[in-house]
Amino acid sequence: MVPCDIRYVFGTLESSDKNVMPVDAALKNNNIVSVVDEATHIDSAQKVVNFASGEQIQYQKLVIATGSQPLKPKWLAGADLQRVYTIPKDKTYLDAMKAELGDAKNIAVIGAGFIGVEMSDELVKHGYNVTLVEKLPAILNMAFDVELASKIHDMLVSRGVNVVAGKGISKVLGADKVEAIELDDGQQLPMDAVILSMGYRPNTALAAASGIYVDEDNFIAVDEFMRTHEADVFAVGDCAQKRDFVTRKRVGTMLASTACAEARIAGMNLFNLNVVKTFSGTIAIYSTAIGETGYGTAGLTEQRAAEEGIATLVGLFEGMDRHPGNLPGAHKQLVKLISAKYSGVIIGGEVIGGLEAGELTNVIGLAIQNRMTVNDFLVMQIGTQPCLTASPAAYPLIKAAEIIAGKMMRNLKEH
Amino acid sequence: MVPCDIRYVFGTLESSDKNVMPVDAALKNNNIVSVVDEATHIDSAQKVVNFASGEQIQYQKLVIATGSQPLKPKWLAGADLQRVYTIPKDKTYLDAMKAELGDAKNIAVIGAGFIGVEMSDELVKHGYNVTLVEKLPAILNMAFDVELASKIHDMLVSRGVNVVAGKGISKVLGADKVEAIELDDGQQLPMDAVILSMGYRPNTALAAASGIYVDEDNFIAVDEFMRTHEADVFAVGDCAQKRDFVTRKRVGTMLASTACAEARIAGMNLFNLNVVKTFSGTIAIYSTAIGETGYGTAGLTEQRAAEEGIATLVGLFEGMDRHPGNLPGAHKQLVKLISAKYSGVIIGGEVIGGLEAGELTNVIGLAIQNRMTVNDFLVMQIGTQPCLTASPAAYPLIKAAEIIAGKMMRNLKEH
Repeated sequence: MVPCDIRYVFGTLESSDKNVMPVDAALKNNNIVSVVDEATHIDSAQKVVNFASGEQIQYQKLVIATGSQPLKPKWLAGADLQRVYTIPKDKTYLDAMKAELGDAKNIAVIGAGFIGVEMSDELVKHGYNVTLVEKLPAILNMAFDVELASKIHDMLVSRGVNVVAGKGISKVLGADKVEAIELDDGQQLPMDAVILSMGYRPNTALAAASGIYVDEDNFIAVDEFMRTHEADVFAVGDCAQKRDFVTRKRVGTMLASTACAEARIAGMNLFNLNVVKTFSGTIAIYSTAIGETGYGTAGLTEQRAAEEGIATLVGLFEGMDRHPGNLPGAHKQLVKLISAKYSGVIIGGEVIGGLEAGELTNVIGLAIQNRMTVNDFLVMQIGTQPCLTASPAAYPLIKAAEIIAGKMMRNLKEH
Repeated sequence: MVPCDIRYVFGTLESSDKNVMPVDAALKNNNIVSVVDEATHIDSAQKVVNFASGEQIQYQKLVIATGSQPLKPKWLAGADLQRVYTIPKDKTYLDAMKAELGDAKNIAVIGAGFIGVEMSDELVKHGYNVTLVEKLPAILNMAFDVELASKIHDMLVSRGVNVVAGKGISKVLGADKVEAIELDDGQQLPMDAVILSMGYRPNTALAAASGIYVDEDNFIAVDEFMRTHEADVFAVGDCAQKRDFVTRKRVGTMLASTACAEARIAGMNLFNLNVVKTFSGTIAIYSTAIGETGYGTAGLTEQRAAEEGIATLVGLFEGMDRHPGNLPGAHKQLVKLISAKYSGVIIGGEVIGGLEAGELTNVIGLAIQNRMTVNDFLVMQIGTQPCLTASPAAYPLIKAAEIIAGKMMRNLKEH
């Protein structure tokens, strides 16, 4: 399955068949043999992988890309009732789930990260009565600061999603199948189905059982070339350890785009170490859409930076994504930039706008990668066009940087 | 007028009233006094500007932002006939032109740069029979390499524009008003109106007459802080000299976004020279749209680089702007990257895609500004989302860079 598209299987795409990754031709054209089997053990001394079928494969270099699976927390009573689902990248599972949901009316989605928000939006489109439950004070709390998240919250509500933030789920109730959920304040809500989008857990049992070092957060430890602690064994994707680009801490970022970047790095360094070809830390860059509204985030939020003890300045600018703003298809565009307080280095940014928001988020991501500062943004050269972007005099990244620059200047004057 | 929107006055927007720049509030909120008058002389020794009304204004700092006006070549016989138009940023002129074009049937647009292409597309939308004439071998020849320009050519043709490339106009024929045009091969085409989009000429007569140095291409000479050769006199925008970011040659780039960047630099350095706040050379970054197809260009084309004696490698990648490509609204997406042959530094890029092409072009522009190399692109971190971007495994900038990297590797092996 194309992982980021799974939600569309429940609304926009008629069938999961339309979401199968078209990889066969690419494999064949590049003389890549694909074997479907279950690896049971890696012997990194002998360089052999054993499979459930009894087959053994000898390797020169091994890349572990075992991915992740959705969390179903052990503490959640009732999590094993019928009609409690998670969202794995598994076509058979998803097809069965879609069929079973057919006659449901009330569906609870637990966890309002990107996946929970996307699923809720697709399910209301489909006509279900959807309640999205988030125990943190705001939805999308890891990706967006509250002032932006609240706009997405309002948008979900206006599209018919019941959003409950600041309360977690305590149990799922029912005899054989789901009948209700109970929130941690004791409130019970009748439900026909529950979808858990409470995070994903790296699939590292094979690595751990094979003596490949797995860190205390259950990711396979890797260096900047994606090498594990065992010679000639690499790991990439959701199962591999990541460090944040700014904080240097280990983080649990699981994104297809990050996985692809890691795969390229492993591929380029598999047989020869090409020291220039690596990146130093993961920048979480992600975007999505609700209807014609796109929104995205790159790097650290202001809240996250504060939690990490990073002093910041922020600039928030609201304009239009076309110019003049009365052009057909124009959409409000809100950008928040987060910089380190004294150096002015850009460490994060958040966008809500039209469908250009995906690539606009990538502009911010690239600025972070290049360690650009607020000053660099002030003299940034950009292209603008009425139907494609904001106006050159109100380009949101530059205007948001101007606001930060003004704050820096006032700080200097005060001292 | 919002300059980049003028074409829409002839189709998409009902009236030029919708295209008036909303500046009054911004001026008022910032205590900026605006005077409408004609400056007749600048005395930079006495720091005085004289106006046609007889008024004099004393200044501490002066910024010349006199812009440009459309070219009407002297060699073009018949250019002064009625119904021969140019496209100035002049509401009164454009309103009159729109009214006069009312009963026309056949319109020739001369010059197939961005403005000529955009005007042609709006005029066919309006129902006119439009012939777009370009003397260079291909349309958009300064902005796109031929393999991309030819796709835009085909798009224009499919939308009903008659495109004549490789032939210039030699004269406009008619008694009082336009009756036909003659091409330089002698062919005559009956026309009711002619629109000249043959380039713009900086408005520098005031500066030149006031003894402010104007270069041999008629731009006001400026340094990196936008200072003219006279003390305390700055110039910005279409009237100010520009140097190309890569070739360091003087160039005639006239873009609203470039003008805005120059204005910010002049503003930041007007009273104190803030040496960090400048950019070293202009990168032409521009984008536009025909229907749901967006296209853009940043930096040098392959052809232009060859003309400048720069050895290059190029990568061309075609994919889809959504993933999977069968999602509603998906559009083909073609990216060409141009790098310096030996250093791998990215010096240009061209995009044809959906409406995300504007911001995708900005990603390339930012990469050029940061002097990123092909290797940096291979490990670039990007965010992807099915409805907003290409797939993470087929992100066009990275795939195009891969193609260049492959060529670099083969070059090394051959030596």
